[in-house]
Amino acid sequence: MLPELNDLKTFRDALNQAPGPDDAALLGAADRNGQLTKPPGALGRLEDLAIWYAGWRGDARPQITAPQVIVFAGNHGVTAQGVSAFPPEVTVQMVMNFEHGGAAINQLAKAAGATMNVHALDLDRPTADFTSGPAMSEDELLEALRVGWTAVDPTADLLVVGEMGIGNTTPAAAIACVLFGGEASDWTGRGTGVDDAGLANKTRVVAEGVALHAGSGDGVEVLRRLGGREIAAMAGAIAAARVLRIPVILDGFICSAAAACLADVSAEALDHAIAGHQSAEGAHAAVLAKLGKEPLLNLGLRLGEGSGGALAINILKSAVACHSGMATFAEAGVSDG
Amino acid sequence: MLPELNDLKTFRDALNQAPGPDDAALLGAADRNGQLTKPPGALGRLEDLAIWYAGWRGDARPQITAPQVIVFAGNHGVTAQGVSAFPPEVTVQMVMNFEHGGAAINQLAKAAGATMNVHALDLDRPTADFTSGPAMSEDELLEALRVGWTAVDPTADLLVVGEMGIGNTTPAAAIACVLFGGEASDWTGRGTGVDDAGLANKTRVVAEGVALHAGSGDGVEVLRRLGGREIAAMAGAIAAARVLRIPVILDGFICSAAAACLADVSAEALDHAIAGHQSAEGAHAAVLAKLGKEPLLNLGLRLGEGSGGALAINILKSAVACHSGMATFAEAGVSDG
Repeated sequence: MLPELNDLKTFRDALNQAPGPDDAALLGAADRNGQLTKPPGALGRLEDLAIWYAGWRGDARPQITAPQVIVFAGNHGVTAQGVSAFPPEVTVQMVMNFEHGGAAINQLAKAAGATMNVHALDLDRPTADFTSGPAMSEDELLEALRVGWTAVDPTADLLVVGEMGIGNTTPAAAIACVLFGGEASDWTGRGTGVDDAGLANKTRVVAEGVALHAGSGDGVEVLRRLGGREIAAMAGAIAAARVLRIPVILDGFICSAAAACLADVSAEALDHAIAGHQSAEGAHAAVLAKLGKEPLLNLGLRLGEGSGGALAINILKSAVACHSGMATFAEAGVSDG
Repeated sequence: MLPELNDLKTFRDALNQAPGPDDAALLGAADRNGQLTKPPGALGRLEDLAIWYAGWRGDARPQITAPQVIVFAGNHGVTAQGVSAFPPEVTVQMVMNFEHGGAAINQLAKAAGATMNVHALDLDRPTADFTSGPAMSEDELLEALRVGWTAVDPTADLLVVGEMGIGNTTPAAAIACVLFGGEASDWTGRGTGVDDAGLANKTRVVAEGVALHAGSGDGVEVLRRLGGREIAAMAGAIAAARVLRIPVILDGFICSAAAACLADVSAEALDHAIAGHQSAEGAHAAVLAKLGKEPLLNLGLRLGEGSGGALAINILKSAVACHSGMATFAEAGVSDG
């Protein structure tokens, strides 16, 4: 059951008190895996994925029948500083495109057999420019977290969250830099495709935000000061899934920055999450390394929208299908070596 | 149209004369890709995959609706030398398992929306032990090639070929060593899981085969001398798909060894093929590097059966779904930067 999100303390407490995977299901799944008609370990990571999934679902022989993809959209005051190759109007235009089924994530969700929901968060009310103050007030953060928290279908058996928000690799880079340390340039990439001068400007903006907000608090406070509404909504949805024991496939750089804010609050906050892919966006590999997540795919995607997470759904579905659908050596009458 | 396979010359000629991709479709697909609602290049390898697929299908906006998975099974005289962790009876037992739907490839083909066919090739008549002479006569090779050649559904729009054959990483290693040079130990791995002593014995067997048959002819002759019936059938099917312009997703080490025999006959023989995954079987990465194929997946699979190829079908389907299903900037009314 998901508690109502009345304040930020409830959010932090929910993360810290969320239940772990089911030990009996983990053991049952590992035992079953050892009896399936294949040489030991021959399905590689698919075996680990299936056992991990079984644990979170509390079922040693689970199925995936109801994946949910949620795309959150938000606008960013920091775009006034020229950090993106695209104008901020594109955020609302792309939301229309999502709603009409014309974007990449629509095709990818469909190919994965997933339902898809879109939540546009106050697109006409961009967050404040984080180089002059916090991006959001506590109330604004709570409202955005709540959008994500309540967007998760409690009957879903797998979740991917994606985002659209022109300029949002800039707050993601600033969040990563504050949480993980290093220089602004370590975390700042080309996003949708800024040139060298654009990258230098973007790095300056990230550095200013980091200088102003570093050391101010935990991941939730970092999210408030440097994030955006869609980034907070992603964090809210990933946290809700953790409480509901719905496994999550993380998408790219921005999704991982949102997730990193949760990991800063509780070391087990992302145990229900795997990395769908490694994005080509500069620092995504480094964020995944910090989170201890090995990506399933590495195909040079850098689109966001949940695209890399959605692309990985069929991998996890295939892993679970093998685990739960294969015959055992005894059932098939096959000699086990 | 697929010519009748009356002799090995017809096979070699078909490979050398097979048509390439459709230039107009390639250009049309590249043009369309540039107009889709995403930053340029943001879908990474998915964009290249879709354009490649469009070229082979002769359609700038293609769909994948009829993938075919074919599993070939064969037995190997060389198993008498103790090269496998499993007894040769397992080949026929696993064929029964395929037919009853209990193997990994059954689940993976189903998850990919693919039809699946199984061809058992004379399981009660293993090939000859290649350490004392050629594994097959010319007639035996032709017959096995023909099984693969005629197994391809001409209405399929994507092909994965897999194999089952206890002991068959040994002939695959010997083929790779003859075609690509180096030492037997460079190409010999643990297969289904031999121990250190088993690996040393297997390496000796590969070295003996290489010593006896190296320098004897082209890839087709290498296939006859060192291959097996299921390996030849895979080569026959991949070649038929080349003639029919049906794109192929290669599976693991044994499939790639079969494919390498074709590449030795014609440099363009595998232009219609991509590597579905990199197997954990020792030398697969090296074979793919020799073939110039970058794997889509690297998840530690080492099962064969077509499992890694089938797992990659949904990646290619997703790429094509994005390409053909997304809206253009003009259609969606989105500013293109």
